[in-house]
Amino acid sequence: MAKSAEEENQQEAFGWAATDNSGILSPFNFSRRENGDDDVTLKILYCGVCHSDLHTLRNEWGFTFYPVVPGHEISGVVTKVGKNVTKFNIGDRVGVGVLVGSCKTCECCEQDLENYCPRIIFTYNSYNPDGTKNYGGYSDMIVVDQRYVLRFPDNLPLDAGAPLLCAGITVYSPMKYYGMTEAGKHLGVAGLGGLGHVAVKIGKAFGLKVTVISSSPQKESEAINRLGADSFLVSNDPAKMKVHKKSAIGTMDYIIDTVSAVHPLLPLLSLLKVNGKLVTVGLPNKPLELPVFPLVMGRKLIGGSDVGGMKETQEMLDFCAKHNITADIELIRIEEINTAMERLAKSDVRYRFVIDVANSLSQ
Amino acid sequence: MAKSAEEENQQEAFGWAATDNSGILSPFNFSRRENGDDDVTLKILYCGVCHSDLHTLRNEWGFTFYPVVPGHEISGVVTKVGKNVTKFNIGDRVGVGVLVGSCKTCECCEQDLENYCPRIIFTYNSYNPDGTKNYGGYSDMIVVDQRYVLRFPDNLPLDAGAPLLCAGITVYSPMKYYGMTEAGKHLGVAGLGGLGHVAVKIGKAFGLKVTVISSSPQKESEAINRLGADSFLVSNDPAKMKVHKKSAIGTMDYIIDTVSAVHPLLPLLSLLKVNGKLVTVGLPNKPLELPVFPLVMGRKLIGGSDVGGMKETQEMLDFCAKHNITADIELIRIEEINTAMERLAKSDVRYRFVIDVANSLSQ
Repeated sequence: MAKSAEEENQQEAFGWAATDNSGILSPFNFSRRENGDDDVTLKILYCGVCHSDLHTLRNEWGFTFYPVVPGHEISGVVTKVGKNVTKFNIGDRVGVGVLVGSCKTCECCEQDLENYCPRIIFTYNSYNPDGTKNYGGYSDMIVVDQRYVLRFPDNLPLDAGAPLLCAGITVYSPMKYYGMTEAGKHLGVAGLGGLGHVAVKIGKAFGLKVTVISSSPQKESEAINRLGADSFLVSNDPAKMKVHKKSAIGTMDYIIDTVSAVHPLLPLLSLLKVNGKLVTVGLPNKPLELPVFPLVMGRKLIGGSDVGGMKETQEMLDFCAKHNITADIELIRIEEINTAMERLAKSDVRYRFVIDVANSLSQ
Repeated sequence: MAKSAEEENQQEAFGWAATDNSGILSPFNFSRRENGDDDVTLKILYCGVCHSDLHTLRNEWGFTFYPVVPGHEISGVVTKVGKNVTKFNIGDRVGVGVLVGSCKTCECCEQDLENYCPRIIFTYNSYNPDGTKNYGGYSDMIVVDQRYVLRFPDNLPLDAGAPLLCAGITVYSPMKYYGMTEAGKHLGVAGLGGLGHVAVKIGKAFGLKVTVISSSPQKESEAINRLGADSFLVSNDPAKMKVHKKSAIGTMDYIIDTVSAVHPLLPLLSLLKVNGKLVTVGLPNKPLELPVFPLVMGRKLIGGSDVGGMKETQEMLDFCAKHNITADIELIRIEEINTAMERLAKSDVRYRFVIDVANSLSQ
């Protein structure tokens, strides 16, 4: 039987998918569109494992469409370019992050804020305008409109650089937008996971004094010695918190709050100076408690931020390359992904799993 | 018996005070310091009645020191100046707002943010460094360090201008600080009371489109016809809110939230565009619920703000004079104050009571 026009425009792809909310991943054959005029095709080499992947696999946010192939910290090399593609050539080292499409015409898109476009198309667990479904980077290849493809600077490794495409931009963008980059100022980083450890490095690159605020006292040494933080504050030990905080109260100019569990804001707000800014990038599934007095009395603000636009994501990659910033990663084979997810759920990773896709994915 | 040195430096004053948490005000004799070298003495002509006065009278915030003479929207004329006073002369039309002192040396004071000085001295219900107590403007005269005295521009009336010293600066300062003054942008004003009605006028003076968000449908006509708002949104009628909101969702650039009761933030956040800013200036006595998703997904922020520094308060008075902005007031005699407080507790005032102090205060 002859193929339909739609089938003609499809090509075979292979990855690992979850088919229900157990979240267990297993080998999965699917199709992607053929490379169009504006498209770039990547052979995927590496893909970071983001906490959002886990939330989605297990349908913890309530909007997962199974089967789902996760992965939005994708790096690889260009294998095909459409005739309108001017930005990339075959063989280029590139990346794809959280989004692969947007309307291109709204106010947000016009301001290079595609990440806030109301018609944003996510890299996985989302649909294209033509009804086809998107699958992420735990797979062999991907076809993406050139607008949403990032260039990896020469010295930025494709494995340890991949997590920057989500974890990196998620902390970089609010630091720029909310004005949290003034050298010499004091940044608190709440939560030392995939996002937090990159925030420490980016903060140091901006010349900030960085204090890690973590519930894991055992991370103190690595926060300071390995990641370069200036100091460490235990957030879950009332006695230690009290002693530490006594000298820390009202000393911070900014806080990046990467904690995605429900947690109290009052202790964090108390660490801020007058005019202090707390930016939350985690996504607790329940509302937090907002104490108004400290906000008003100290003219403090709480802001949100969600990844970044394509232009700023490129800027972030260039910045990280210049300052030799990468994620601290644990490279795994795709067969190890289900174990890795269990460890991720327990925060047992320093600090990002990255899948060695090309070397471990085979049918 | 000879007077002590301290008594020598005191002078008699007269006002109305509450002596317990019934909050009932009655005539009260007390003393103020003699006019010092840096001081200005005012004969008080008018004093606005702020909701904070009511909170304090009834000890609703839990830190009232009785007896308390309230009042921090004070206007009058200068009757005495100290030898170091360069800014004022006898006969000048002046005002005193929420604060009458600060340390003058901290980072905040150096940046003209005396209102955030950790050693701020409030106009009433507070103590001076020498242990003497401060009493507010429901009284015949006051002695204040010249730094904390404001000049009334010639065309700004002393009665309807007095409420600007708290209500005016409370909404003006965050509009400036958070960048909510770009002509053509859309401002929501939540709550149409003493603060809200001034926010509408100041917003219009900045060239903003202003929508009032109120729980009182009967205020629609006056909001638009009398105060100059462009539109009106009922916030407590689910049906109307739904209809109105449908077209209002994601249309506002800024919201000033003047509501001091506990209230949901989610409906307000949903009215904001991407990058929208919500500033809260009310002081609910319990935490609010903070939904994180809309904050993150729309890069929105919630900021606090508390009155303003002396330089900015003067700037605000000059701005209001230039734009003929005053509060809408109901002038009362001091004997009417207890009835007025009862009405204020029920929001039964359009929009600020002002006491005709000089014409009604007598022993």
